[in-house]
Amino acid sequence: MTFSNEATISREQQFAAAHGENEATALSRILEPHSVAVIGASSNPDKRGFQIIKALKKGGYAYPIYPVNPRTGTILDVPVVTEIAALPRDVDIAIIVRPAEEVPEILIQCGERGVAGAVVLAHGFRERGDNGSAAEERLRDALARSGVRIIGPNTSGMLNCTVGADFIGLPELPPSGPVSALTQSGNMVLSLVEDRRAINGPGFDVIAGLGNQTDVGYAELIEELCLRETTRSIAIYNEGFLNGRAFLDAASRVVQSCPIVMLRGGRSSEGQKAALSHTGSIAGADDVALKTLAQMGVSLVERSDELLPVAALMATTPLPKPGTGVVVLTDGGGHATLAVDALSRSGVPFASLSESTKIRLRSVLGGQASVLNPIDVASAADAYPDVFPECIEILASDPEVGLVVINGLFGAYHVRFDSSLLAAENSAAERIVSLQQVTGLPLVFHSCYANRKPENHDILRQGGIQVFPSIDWAVAGCKALFERADWLARQGLDGREIVVDAASVAVPGGLSAETTARGILQKLGVGTGEWVPASDAESVETAVARFAAACAVKVDTACVVHKSDVGCVRLGVKREAARAAARGIESAMAFAAPKASFGFIVAPMVKSGVELFVGATNDPVFGPVILFGSGGVLVEAAGDVTFRAAPFSPDEALDMINETRVAKILDGFRNYPKVDKGLLANFISKVSHAVMSMENLSELDINPIIANESGIYPVDVRLVGK
Amino acid sequence: MTFSNEATISREQQFAAAHGENEATALSRILEPHSVAVIGASSNPDKRGFQIIKALKKGGYAYPIYPVNPRTGTILDVPVVTEIAALPRDVDIAIIVRPAEEVPEILIQCGERGVAGAVVLAHGFRERGDNGSAAEERLRDALARSGVRIIGPNTSGMLNCTVGADFIGLPELPPSGPVSALTQSGNMVLSLVEDRRAINGPGFDVIAGLGNQTDVGYAELIEELCLRETTRSIAIYNEGFLNGRAFLDAASRVVQSCPIVMLRGGRSSEGQKAALSHTGSIAGADDVALKTLAQMGVSLVERSDELLPVAALMATTPLPKPGTGVVVLTDGGGHATLAVDALSRSGVPFASLSESTKIRLRSVLGGQASVLNPIDVASAADAYPDVFPECIEILASDPEVGLVVINGLFGAYHVRFDSSLLAAENSAAERIVSLQQVTGLPLVFHSCYANRKPENHDILRQGGIQVFPSIDWAVAGCKALFERADWLARQGLDGREIVVDAASVAVPGGLSAETTARGILQKLGVGTGEWVPASDAESVETAVARFAAACAVKVDTACVVHKSDVGCVRLGVKREAARAAARGIESAMAFAAPKASFGFIVAPMVKSGVELFVGATNDPVFGPVILFGSGGVLVEAAGDVTFRAAPFSPDEALDMINETRVAKILDGFRNYPKVDKGLLANFISKVSHAVMSMENLSELDINPIIANESGIYPVDVRLVGK
Repeated sequence: MTFSNEATISREQQFAAAHGENEATALSRILEPHSVAVIGASSNPDKRGFQIIKALKKGGYAYPIYPVNPRTGTILDVPVVTEIAALPRDVDIAIIVRPAEEVPEILIQCGERGVAGAVVLAHGFRERGDNGSAAEERLRDALARSGVRIIGPNTSGMLNCTVGADFIGLPELPPSGPVSALTQSGNMVLSLVEDRRAINGPGFDVIAGLGNQTDVGYAELIEELCLRETTRSIAIYNEGFLNGRAFLDAASRVVQSCPIVMLRGGRSSEGQKAALSHTGSIAGADDVALKTLAQMGVSLVERSDELLPVAALMATTPLPKPGTGVVVLTDGGGHATLAVDALSRSGVPFASLSESTKIRLRSVLGGQASVLNPIDVASAADAYPDVFPECIEILASDPEVGLVVINGLFGAYHVRFDSSLLAAENSAAERIVSLQQVTGLPLVFHSCYANRKPENHDILRQGGIQVFPSIDWAVAGCKALFERADWLARQGLDGREIVVDAASVAVPGGLSAETTARGILQKLGVGTGEWVPASDAESVETAVARFAAACAVKVDTACVVHKSDVGCVRLGVKREAARAAARGIESAMAFAAPKASFGFIVAPMVKSGVELFVGATNDPVFGPVILFGSGGVLVEAAGDVTFRAAPFSPDEALDMINETRVAKILDGFRNYPKVDKGLLANFISKVSHAVMSMENLSELDINPIIANESGIYPVDVRLVGK
Repeated sequence: MTFSNEATISREQQFAAAHGENEATALSRILEPHSVAVIGASSNPDKRGFQIIKALKKGGYAYPIYPVNPRTGTILDVPVVTEIAALPRDVDIAIIVRPAEEVPEILIQCGERGVAGAVVLAHGFRERGDNGSAAEERLRDALARSGVRIIGPNTSGMLNCTVGADFIGLPELPPSGPVSALTQSGNMVLSLVEDRRAINGPGFDVIAGLGNQTDVGYAELIEELCLRETTRSIAIYNEGFLNGRAFLDAASRVVQSCPIVMLRGGRSSEGQKAALSHTGSIAGADDVALKTLAQMGVSLVERSDELLPVAALMATTPLPKPGTGVVVLTDGGGHATLAVDALSRSGVPFASLSESTKIRLRSVLGGQASVLNPIDVASAADAYPDVFPECIEILASDPEVGLVVINGLFGAYHVRFDSSLLAAENSAAERIVSLQQVTGLPLVFHSCYANRKPENHDILRQGGIQVFPSIDWAVAGCKALFERADWLARQGLDGREIVVDAASVAVPGGLSAETTARGILQKLGVGTGEWVPASDAESVETAVARFAAACAVKVDTACVVHKSDVGCVRLGVKREAARAAARGIESAMAFAAPKASFGFIVAPMVKSGVELFVGATNDPVFGPVILFGSGGVLVEAAGDVTFRAAPFSPDEALDMINETRVAKILDGFRNYPKVDKGLLANFISKVSHAVMSMENLSELDINPIIANESGIYPVDVRLVGK
């Protein structure tokens, strides 16, 4: 795992570590092809095989195009090549517009001509359900034989705005710029393009529809995009992963240098069904996905209309410095109130302004102005737009201020009040651009007039500052910036990483006896407290006597899941009652599981405390995942649980703890004991490392764990192997 | 309270019940003035007193305008009146642009000339904090003496697009239409106007900035707007209420015929501070506000950019029939997945299509098409836009289908694919408009091309169908429509309304002894189970003996809040231990509260069950409010609580129960007993009626209530009077 304490490394180093030389070349050639063959080119304007050539010409694509069609001639003045075998060697990319059944043979022919990669548009493969799996099999076969790398099948295509390569056939090519995008939906490509257009946002580098990911998938694509100097953020519309773990690994490397903004589809059960019929992929448990993706530094957005604005902001805006907060600079109380509410809801920290900052702000805004946070310039800006750059300049020198949200009517005083302000507003915008460039202070604008696209907004945008018509988009972007800054700051800072250097342990199939489960945990560095196994009533008595305290006596067997439900647990057992307790359990077992072999496990009673739960599962999408939350019998009903991909540090575990509701009780609520959260975090982190060394793990439940002022006591341990 | 089982009554009846004749006239004349005096008119184009006259002329205001200014002449060709005394009698409205200190005298002069109402723009009143309260006092005085009704002070103004009266001075008057708006922020007026412009939505009737609400406030305004035939929905940006209870009462009447869509500001503690400095009002506890407003049928939106789209939709779109669900009709899997996710997250029910509907859909879409929900027309629409009206027509005949969300590229096939489709798309839109009109089936559109404003989208809009560029806006609107339909359907259906016809009871000041508290509850119809008071150890023993069961013996006093914390509770007391228990409590009291007079309360022990909590507070904004949730010592840490304004029916109480996490346990989780939710709902509803008859109630806590298979047992009752 790489998401622990590595220093940030260069994009090239990252890539070199991830790929061999040849593959790198193939994928980089696909994403920025310098020659294109269109397999299935057509002279019929209604056909995709015509539209792609038309789009390439229209987009200003400056490299060779080879229409492949058995009939000779030209298409849009481009000479046709009659067969793949007649292509020049080593074409970068083939766009295959022929139907599913022809694709395998085409790929093999392409391989023979040294074509590096292909985009396969055809559908009729895995996404069809069982009907398509044979076609998918033939496709895989052809991939293995030909060596051609493909995007798709069942993709809407791909575009590279930097070289003008549009294989989607858009009405017009979007401007080139720093945002790249990966989607599992052709319609979402169109949404991203239209959403950018609506906000006059920065342009695109590469946009690719992943389709079935039969060959190239998310993990490889983000690593390749991260290598591109022209990509500054990656927007993803994701409907699930074929290999979520590979994505988590790749993402944790990529986000070191390139932000990833993700919108997830198929989060609800109804949505999962829709996504499944659409791309044949499964989104996975939503909670697990959200928590593990955030853990790896992926910026998640909730709403579909936020994906493009946030990715645009991340691509162009500097990050706030760690430990700083946001300031809202406004010309209207209502807008400021809404921005502050939304920032607060998003967990963005607020800056407290220093006294000297306040004094300086008052000298600009007048003695009556509100110079708390939000800062309200009120009507000061109506006739004098430079009040904004003046305030920003003051804020930039306050070390508490990490980012300024400017909100209200900005840039439209010439619309709202007096058209003669146009020039002054343009020059204020220019001053603001140079302030962000000189000071590095990130600036985010909301203006309710943004949809009118006044000149000065475009001045800001050309200077790398985004202006949004929606307060909520601006705030979603601020949240992503602060979270990313925080995430990056934590990389390499964590001195408490636990390294468990244990050889791996095979978990027996099915349910383990509790002593086996505890033994495995202890071997892997996870303390399970005081307990001893006992074989019979006599040794139970000996064990209780040795502890010299009231004990819990439980059956130890692989044959009973809920021990107390079948009368196989005795609590508060003293020496004099120990034999009777063991005999009682023996009788209960004779009834509950007459043929089971069993022993006993004896442990001193634990003082009462807060009941917690630590668990692990082998998630089908994201691999080993740790659960933490409120424990006890109500664990499911309480629904107070959070997730992380294993392994992780105690710091990450502390975050988990603080995300749960039970965290409030751990600080010593009413009569409850105060629990050492650091100790607890250490325990959770140790479990997260231990499960990485367990082979064939299916499920681990440590529930309840009793936490009190003296420690962390696992009371019941249940381990299940595959 | 009117939010129980009244039949829907006409707007006129509602108004007649709420107002006397004269007041009605004054406020209706303010909102639609047929003559305007501008007090402080100016010939200086930079002054508001000029801009208002200019805006009236530009907006086509067709009624008399009277600029009032000591200097004679004309302003924009309108003859100036040199003093208020020279105005004609009974002018509808005066716009007062003079500073705060002059306002009271101006109002008195206006009153003398029979001016009905005024808009007071000046600030410098209550919103200034203590500095402004004297000015506010003088203003109130002038209001009382003059009889003039005012909107403001500290308001950005008001506009009536229907008559072209713009007292705000916008760059251009928005088109007139069915949406009215009330806001506590001038900037939010501008946002609403710009947001409408961005989506080409329906126009406005009245927009008013409420300002300090020194006279006319929310409650009166919504009732008056509801009377206007030209208003079909009311959008509100609210930063808190001076009298939340009056708003709840008015809203529950208004929403019977006119939807109210509300965005709340000042929800976070940071936002509350911002709002307070802005309008001097307090938003109140967010949870209480959200729950009580929803209870009265107010449609709440979460994000500022949703207010206008949802209000536009509510003003123009028919309601789904109760008990129906939504269908998503799409041309792209990604968009459909996102719409389905968002609908699911919003709790909108999905329709199951009948077999005959599916067969008919397949006959249009082909045998391979996905005719589940979402219905994916896939590429069927690329060349044949009429596939949409054909599917909608089929869906309209399925009684399960309550609303159709059409999402994807709708209306832009001529942009995306083939410009020759323009005419076919326009005619499809026309067919769709007539389908909504004929069948009454509500339709909501998302198109990622909506920002391009294709002709056919405007055909839809002119036919009363909204088209949004954001899936999330469309979904927020669907949520509001379904919730409103559900709310209306429940009015009058509730046969289980509890009427407590008790005379009111005065709650003693401070903490009551528990027997007093229980006595008051019982008198008001709330059973508190078996218990008896006892005066001394002997009568405690008698009581325990009479119950013939183990009992709880507790001190009964007004001097101890947490009885068990000071050793004044004994549990599981049998007859033989009863005297000792009482004596033990006596000793504990001698230590804890030596001078307190006290007795005992004896009740049989309750079998274990689920611990619940029912409480009541007298909310400073919303009046008597009932709380329900998980009980026990962890009640605060669990945070599992919901709210309603008292009184309410058992049906409403059942909704409360089902909103909490503990509801899952009530159905019989693991070893927990199954609880009769109907019985519990009845109990909560009874408490909600009882508190309405308590004078001077400050707080009521019934915690824990033990609920098990045999009943509902209030264990501890704590009542506090003012």
